[in-house]
Amino acid sequence: MISIVGHTAIDHISRVPHLPAKNCSTHISHREIYFGGGAANIAAGIAMLGEQVTLISCVGGDFAGSDYDSWMNRIGIHQQFFVVHDSHTPTAFMFTDDAGDQMTFFEWGASKVFASSESPYLPFVHMATADPEFNCRVAERSEFTSFDPGQDVFWYTKEQLGKILSHTDILFANQHEIQQMCRTLGVTKDAIVKQVGIAVFTMSGDGSTLYSQGNEHFIPVVPVILADPTGAGDSYRAGFLSAYIRGYPPLTCCKIGTVTASFVVEHVGCQTHLPDWNAMRVRYKQYFGTLESPAARND
Amino acid sequence: MISIVGHTAIDHISRVPHLPAKNCSTHISHREIYFGGGAANIAAGIAMLGEQVTLISCVGGDFAGSDYDSWMNRIGIHQQFFVVHDSHTPTAFMFTDDAGDQMTFFEWGASKVFASSESPYLPFVHMATADPEFNCRVAERSEFTSFDPGQDVFWYTKEQLGKILSHTDILFANQHEIQQMCRTLGVTKDAIVKQVGIAVFTMSGDGSTLYSQGNEHFIPVVPVILADPTGAGDSYRAGFLSAYIRGYPPLTCCKIGTVTASFVVEHVGCQTHLPDWNAMRVRYKQYFGTLESPAARND
Repeated sequence: MISIVGHTAIDHISRVPHLPAKNCSTHISHREIYFGGGAANIAAGIAMLGEQVTLISCVGGDFAGSDYDSWMNRIGIHQQFFVVHDSHTPTAFMFTDDAGDQMTFFEWGASKVFASSESPYLPFVHMATADPEFNCRVAERSEFTSFDPGQDVFWYTKEQLGKILSHTDILFANQHEIQQMCRTLGVTKDAIVKQVGIAVFTMSGDGSTLYSQGNEHFIPVVPVILADPTGAGDSYRAGFLSAYIRGYPPLTCCKIGTVTASFVVEHVGCQTHLPDWNAMRVRYKQYFGTLESPAARND
Repeated sequence: MISIVGHTAIDHISRVPHLPAKNCSTHISHREIYFGGGAANIAAGIAMLGEQVTLISCVGGDFAGSDYDSWMNRIGIHQQFFVVHDSHTPTAFMFTDDAGDQMTFFEWGASKVFASSESPYLPFVHMATADPEFNCRVAERSEFTSFDPGQDVFWYTKEQLGKILSHTDILFANQHEIQQMCRTLGVTKDAIVKQVGIAVFTMSGDGSTLYSQGNEHFIPVVPVILADPTGAGDSYRAGFLSAYIRGYPPLTCCKIGTVTASFVVEHVGCQTHLPDWNAMRVRYKQYFGTLESPAARND
């Protein structure tokens, strides 16, 4: 069982002819609601790949019985939620006009109770972006810990990042996030890589790099027709973690993460086009060769 | 049975510390979802006053089973809906910052099918703001017709307004709306008043005026502690129409409308604090004297 800690969120993506000025209005020509939140995206990816997964999130009184709730139940995500009845599930409203300009309104909502919540004991946990203090408590109480600070990396203090990394077995970050971690901690990337067992740095469409046992491996992306890059990182982590818990070596886990992400970016939405294990394996074979059964990993 | 034609809408009212500039974001400190839409507000007011009411609206695939759907069922509104499965129920997103400045994003959504929909035959109908062409068809096919153009008065052509007024038995408008109707039609207020049987002009917190059978009556507001004036007009019409169908004379209908509205403005939200008939009657007595049984109306 993999546990994922972090946000479940609802994204309202709207098109408008023009963004409104102060005290003006505009009409929405098209609005789509997407299931999102980093932790929920990863949990959905893992569930679709056929692994047991528990999602630890804060949701509002609006969640139970909602379409998102039904979707999670349908794909088999185990929910371990902090329910805040008088709050909303975190919700983002994004408006894009015909010129491509945007405005975003984000409601943190129920996620505020992370700050005051106790962490359960977790044998295998991935901590996605969430409240830094809660993530510290999770890291201290967990057996095996994977971590990606996401864009909330700016909210972490030196002490919080230090504490979490001292418990981290796998670290995921993109280039901006690792740079910010180095600034906050006052250390080099090499020092961080040495501290954690496995580090995976993603570079958007330019592939990813694995640091493990003193070695560095570059994993190229799988070429697909890109519809929307949102959710690529989350699905990469879903693929990696699903493979890791099955016993695949880290480099194979990175390749499986890469292949998983290649499906997601072909469609708009972070949970719209997640592959099952077999679809992933077929595409894996095409680009990386036959995916064998996992070899015994020396960890 | 009173039929109400027009919008059912969902209002998301949010507070933000500051409104975002282009390509920036802000966070929502508080968001409330209110049930709205002019026609739905009036139908809810009538249902709460204990009258049979059918609401004719366009809703999206998101409506069935929603909280709003449950609320309508609970208070006994009969739904006669055009359901557009691949659209949303009309939805408004309003953001107000700490300086009191606002931005509104309105999604017309499912209401677009009014334009191409057939009108049913209706013995007693009130037409709230909706598609002008649909309202023309309703006016032509109905027996007894009440009409308020609302803020959509600007969308009506001279021909549309003329056609509807030629079938209108009761007209409701505020000062801005009646002025716009005069401009569109190129006639005086007196001419409009003469054309329809009964005209009621509301003046926000300054009371209302009834024109009926050549007479003019002023009805003062009932003094209450104002929380939010939104929905006052809709609840006034709910009170008036509920009283009218029970056989009360127009002046008493106006007073009942005034009392009904006085409840709604005491709370935020158009359907949050609607009175039942008895609560209305108790307050009516306080300000206008005992509400007798309806006398036979000479119409």
